[in-house]
Amino acid sequence: MRDAYHEELDSIGDGLVDMARLVGSAIGRATTAILDADLKLAESVIAADEKVDNLQRDLEGRAITLLARQQPVATDLRIVVTSLRMSADLERSGDLAQHVAKLARLRFPESAVPHDLHATILEMGQLAQRLMAKAAEVIISKDVDLALQLEQDDDAMDLLHRALFQHLMDDRWKHGIETAVDVTLLGRYYERFADHAVSVAKRVVYLVTGEHADEMSPQGDVEGA
Amino acid sequence: MRDAYHEELDSIGDGLVDMARLVGSAIGRATTAILDADLKLAESVIAADEKVDNLQRDLEGRAITLLARQQPVATDLRIVVTSLRMSADLERSGDLAQHVAKLARLRFPESAVPHDLHATILEMGQLAQRLMAKAAEVIISKDVDLALQLEQDDDAMDLLHRALFQHLMDDRWKHGIETAVDVTLLGRYYERFADHAVSVAKRVVYLVTGEHADEMSPQGDVEGA
Repeated sequence: MRDAYHEELDSIGDGLVDMARLVGSAIGRATTAILDADLKLAESVIAADEKVDNLQRDLEGRAITLLARQQPVATDLRIVVTSLRMSADLERSGDLAQHVAKLARLRFPESAVPHDLHATILEMGQLAQRLMAKAAEVIISKDVDLALQLEQDDDAMDLLHRALFQHLMDDRWKHGIETAVDVTLLGRYYERFADHAVSVAKRVVYLVTGEHADEMSPQGDVEGA
Repeated sequence: MRDAYHEELDSIGDGLVDMARLVGSAIGRATTAILDADLKLAESVIAADEKVDNLQRDLEGRAITLLARQQPVATDLRIVVTSLRMSADLERSGDLAQHVAKLARLRFPESAVPHDLHATILEMGQLAQRLMAKAAEVIISKDVDLALQLEQDDDAMDLLHRALFQHLMDDRWKHGIETAVDVTLLGRYYERFADHAVSVAKRVVYLVTGEHADEMSPQGDVEGA
């Protein structure tokens, strides 16, 4: 009985890693789609989010079945409840990648991103993808040091976000309001995506160290935004 | 034993209602703060979010204790797990109200909202507050019809959001980029706040009817944004 139980617990962990990989790939592809104004790629990212949603539903179903049948306590219970939260973070990250792709589709055949911001958006997209790749690694390895690295990466994301806004606010901005609105939303999507990746990693730290959940909710920061 | 259990379950429900009331009040006050450029009110909204966070932490702790001690199954288990999700929606709604207040603080002594958009933002703020008041009522009454009303209210929010963007995109927009960025973010905050209120109500519907979780995740919609 206990063996089947731990197998089921492992499979929930595997499901989380699958979700993290899918949404990491999605944010990378969505970034390419928006920079290249690639409609086909955008459509594929939009369609692929269903896979993430299905994975989450499946994972939640298994977590609830496990709670009902095995009635875990202490650490095991904490793992299952925390997994539910991580799956919500990952599902939401998938939505955000989809938002980027939808913006690409909305502006096609134009690119939503003006040339002088390509480099910044590319960096935000790459950083978001790296953050999620590290979050997946943290789920697998339970490496607390690696988890803490994600916070530094997130600081880098905040700097990029700030740079984006400085660019927007610059008197020399010549791309008009529509593009300013697009870039504002885009910046917000990447920032929130990164928050969720950090949140996933912090929840693993909580499981390993028992450190309080206070530190663990994604912090959307309006300053500089 | 079962009595103490149902008392505990009820108190989790009460905690959710308290959270919904606090964040409903917060979005109302944050809206007043940003429209009137009232720094003191903004600060009070920002400070009050800690209460919401504490309520959530408390509620989660009690839910986990209940899972461990009482090991509920079937409907009771579903109630506890769904409560955890609702508390996450409400905590996030509190963050969004705080974001509105932070924007008010950031632009003080100016108002972040130009005069010709006061009426729209006021309407969005009021609608957000009403949505959350109804969500609280749905938690108490478990009234499925009322829960379904929230979706219509959310359609009204989408229309307001769209109107806001049309105004932004209008060639006659004369408030510059910074204000366009502020208004873009503000629109997003209200829209997401409404999504979370709808999500809370839908989760109650799920508990009552067993309708699938597919319909239940908040849908951020980039179209028109």
